[in-house]
Amino acid sequence: LDKVMMEEVRKYQDTLTKPTGSLGRLEEISIQVAGITGKKTPDFGKKAVVVMAGDHGVVAEGVSAFPQVVTQQMVYNFANGGAAINVLARQAGAEVKVVDIGVAGDVEVPGVWVRKVKYGTNNFCQGPAMSKEEAIQALEVGIDVAEELIEDGFSILATGEMGIGNTTASSAIVSLLTGCTVEEAVGPGTGVDNEGIKRKINAIKRGIEVNKPDVNDALDVLMKVGGLEIAGITGLILGAAANRVPVVIDGFISTAAALVAKGLAPESVNYMIGSHCSAEPAHRRSLEILGIKPVLDLKMRLGEGTGAVLTFYLIESAVRIVKEMATFESAGVATKE
Amino acid sequence: LDKVMMEEVRKYQDTLTKPTGSLGRLEEISIQVAGITGKKTPDFGKKAVVVMAGDHGVVAEGVSAFPQVVTQQMVYNFANGGAAINVLARQAGAEVKVVDIGVAGDVEVPGVWVRKVKYGTNNFCQGPAMSKEEAIQALEVGIDVAEELIEDGFSILATGEMGIGNTTASSAIVSLLTGCTVEEAVGPGTGVDNEGIKRKINAIKRGIEVNKPDVNDALDVLMKVGGLEIAGITGLILGAAANRVPVVIDGFISTAAALVAKGLAPESVNYMIGSHCSAEPAHRRSLEILGIKPVLDLKMRLGEGTGAVLTFYLIESAVRIVKEMATFESAGVATKE
Repeated sequence: LDKVMMEEVRKYQDTLTKPTGSLGRLEEISIQVAGITGKKTPDFGKKAVVVMAGDHGVVAEGVSAFPQVVTQQMVYNFANGGAAINVLARQAGAEVKVVDIGVAGDVEVPGVWVRKVKYGTNNFCQGPAMSKEEAIQALEVGIDVAEELIEDGFSILATGEMGIGNTTASSAIVSLLTGCTVEEAVGPGTGVDNEGIKRKINAIKRGIEVNKPDVNDALDVLMKVGGLEIAGITGLILGAAANRVPVVIDGFISTAAALVAKGLAPESVNYMIGSHCSAEPAHRRSLEILGIKPVLDLKMRLGEGTGAVLTFYLIESAVRIVKEMATFESAGVATKE
Repeated sequence: LDKVMMEEVRKYQDTLTKPTGSLGRLEEISIQVAGITGKKTPDFGKKAVVVMAGDHGVVAEGVSAFPQVVTQQMVYNFANGGAAINVLARQAGAEVKVVDIGVAGDVEVPGVWVRKVKYGTNNFCQGPAMSKEEAIQALEVGIDVAEELIEDGFSILATGEMGIGNTTASSAIVSLLTGCTVEEAVGPGTGVDNEGIKRKINAIKRGIEVNKPDVNDALDVLMKVGGLEIAGITGLILGAAANRVPVVIDGFISTAAALVAKGLAPESVNYMIGSHCSAEPAHRRSLEILGIKPVLDLKMRLGEGTGAVLTFYLIESAVRIVKEMATFESAGVATKE
């Protein structure tokens, strides 16, 4: 981070015609993006949300309200522009980049980047979700996607995902990397009932018992109970951070990926911008551990990158305030007595 | 409210390619605005934020961190486009309508609507802030402004204000109309220290003792311890509601005005859309009593309408989702098992 530029923006905020700190998180974001980019008022002309799609072997345990084929079907929906993320990205002036990193079936439709590591993870109740090599390959897909987009001129990225079963994998990661109990880490996901929640809890407990992930080794956790799209998001975050590009973290699944990114490269958290706090009960705790703050309070639980893409607008607000507001001096307004 | 249209949108939301209710508050807003306007996907082409400006006699008690003249100076800043509300309104594609309803000095600058009821309120520690006639006149200014804007084609309004000392008047209203103690109702405002908070608490207690407002009569509360710009916002809300136009409620001061509106016309709450929850401690309680939910979590405490104008974007997102998303049937996506 460019500490000099951050200090410059911090001081400049106090000269603008408003009580000190009264724009709250907008002021903090303006300082953070100045630190990330080294520019006082960065111009986020080209924005993208990356939707990583992958399947989960653990769905065999009855952990989701939807059938596995929905992952593939939703990828087609993304390609055709009909999903919520497409609608919100159009509104934001952002592009949707869909990556098949691990869908269980073949996806052949224009506009989807096929970077498939594997046709879905293995059921982690019976062994590791993926091999170490596969986990690293999925991380590299994310890094590569980030770098390709940045080379193509995208200056801010948002994380997104699609993967039936992925709140179960995310809850497993969150439990292991934040130290909360499995019960505390599990929520309703796309809408399972109490029996479904019990199946999620049991599956995660068995996954942990069978695989014995090392909680001090984020890569070990990722490969044993994680997901391909989660690994892809982790890579995307690392790739953005390495290139000094802000990356907006979407909901619960993206936050699990962000916890893995923090484990692999602690400084990556400086490049993350929070979006919303979802209805998943362990989301807030995870955000607090990452030190990133949500700005939206919409009770959303969709994923896809929807919360992150809505946040682009607020990040642009934050920068625009610095660019366009009058100072006390220029406007002839008296300061605090 | 158009209950039939609300039910139509509620059912339609469940056909869209996402888990039921997963867009949270965005879904609720889409249903609310359909009920208000009677349209499935209302088009909010012309948007305005109304900034009511007025001064407060109670500043003589040392309740604000800024000198009174800042109200007038900020009105000039609004007219010149240099304030935070101007920046955020430009981003939102909304117009800023500044109304001098009670500034202590004369404001003569193009673009400001002069509808002055009085050169600032009286110090409510010594008697009522305004007469009943003045309070009604200020309410009527707000109603008239709403009706003029709606006749001019504005289809959604946001509340905003400027008035040094107005968190003190708002805290007095909030204490009386929500039943919390004066201590619970008072916060730092634009940034007073602990001594300043004590002065605010003492001023409000004296104001209540001297004027004995009737807590069951919102107009009595408004005239005795309120403010001209607060009355103007109350009128604006009533005018919007009477014309079936959604009105976005900004921060703590606007919420105090909304409590008065609820007292005068309980059904007006159906036309209010929440924006953010500010750093003022009694704001959340007030929102809960109104039954309106904040969508932004930005720790802002500026007022002017800044939180409300940021919310326009999210309201447009909510409508756009209904307008543009694919259904499970049209996209060929399987539904919940």
